[in-house]
Amino acid sequence: MTYKLVLLRHGQSEWNALNLFTGWVDVPLSDLGKEEAAHGGELLKKEGILPDVLFTSMLRRAIMTANLALDACDRHWIPVQRDWRLNERHYGALQGKNKKEIRDEYGDDQFMLWRRSYDTPPPAIELGSEFSQDTDPRYAGEPIPATECLKDVLERMLPYWEETIVPVIKTGKTVMIAAHGNSLRAIVKHLDGISDEDIAEVNIPTGIPLLYELDENLVPLKKGGTYLDPDAQAKIDAVANQGK
Amino acid sequence: MTYKLVLLRHGQSEWNALNLFTGWVDVPLSDLGKEEAAHGGELLKKEGILPDVLFTSMLRRAIMTANLALDACDRHWIPVQRDWRLNERHYGALQGKNKKEIRDEYGDDQFMLWRRSYDTPPPAIELGSEFSQDTDPRYAGEPIPATECLKDVLERMLPYWEETIVPVIKTGKTVMIAAHGNSLRAIVKHLDGISDEDIAEVNIPTGIPLLYELDENLVPLKKGGTYLDPDAQAKIDAVANQGK
Repeated sequence: MTYKLVLLRHGQSEWNALNLFTGWVDVPLSDLGKEEAAHGGELLKKEGILPDVLFTSMLRRAIMTANLALDACDRHWIPVQRDWRLNERHYGALQGKNKKEIRDEYGDDQFMLWRRSYDTPPPAIELGSEFSQDTDPRYAGEPIPATECLKDVLERMLPYWEETIVPVIKTGKTVMIAAHGNSLRAIVKHLDGISDEDIAEVNIPTGIPLLYELDENLVPLKKGGTYLDPDAQAKIDAVANQGK
Repeated sequence: MTYKLVLLRHGQSEWNALNLFTGWVDVPLSDLGKEEAAHGGELLKKEGILPDVLFTSMLRRAIMTANLALDACDRHWIPVQRDWRLNERHYGALQGKNKKEIRDEYGDDQFMLWRRSYDTPPPAIELGSEFSQDTDPRYAGEPIPATECLKDVLERMLPYWEETIVPVIKTGKTVMIAAHGNSLRAIVKHLDGISDEDIAEVNIPTGIPLLYELDENLVPLKKGGTYLDPDAQAKIDAVANQGK
């Protein structure tokens, strides 16, 4: 038995376009992002990789990406579950700040540490401030963070993965996860057994479905999976260069 | 305890605009339909009627309407369940046919009988034909119809209403149902206790949320509910005049 898992990072958001740290701020897709999402669905249709079940984060850029991609491949009607444990990394006090300004203010080393180190979170966001989510009704009663490093993302994502997503994968259904750069990097780190150091070099482009075929122990048949787009590498390089 | 239920008929579809019988054919929203959907969400936001749970049919015009409306009122993240029992009436052999041509060919009386009688279904659709859904994977294993009158819609909708939707309403959550002219008329007939004859005169406009407040026995506090738009009556009249 081989299982199929599709990872889909949301298309460009209005804040990606403005080069702002977004995190849990619930910004919409840009027009380009909507096009990327529909294109992602067309790639799924062309390759005949048709999701049976969808998981998303609680953020509209991932939700809308999934909606548009599934509409494009005629799978808009499949069941969906949403959970904050698939949300983007919480960027703490950096949320809403310009990436270039933070880089100029704090220097390259601190910038890259916050952006790519495995276990150094940015300063916590001030509760009640403009870009905090502490009073957002969608998280009522949930133990949500005030900042996160990638390690934190992995630790809150993994229990959801094991308890909720894996049982569905093991039914043999094709599962799609529509989420974010860092929550998907956490899944990829776990699946491919990537070290805490090497995960810094892993970048996931927007809007291109990444197919993992998994054996009965959920080990990838091909490490890193397969992007359903021959031009994926150029887009991966573009992500790595963000903020430069 | 008062319960809140919001009924939302999908915005204009590409076939509404072409005046074709649609039924279960899975046509997309027109641009006007997308605007209607977002406007419906803005009305919800303005009135502070914020859905906690969504139910939709399996058809993209209802699904996309809900997606756009919920995005507009910041409730895109709520849980959703979809079921064919909320689908539009199956229009049988009329699916894909022009309403005016059918009226000219069969005459006013037969046209209105198929369109508005409670218990006269159109001829069944031929299985395997262009506008049949018998091989559609979303209905695999389900006892789907080949034609329906409104009575048939009510009979397949009611068990889903009782078993799946009512228990959620009774938790006190605000439930939204995004569906179709006839599946929503079936719900309204049931809620308001409308006779088989009088339901012919009930028309539901597209894209305007219809709020029912229900007592503990799910009896509407106000018969017919309340449209969240002062211009609703003009749109109701427009539906009644379709095909004329």
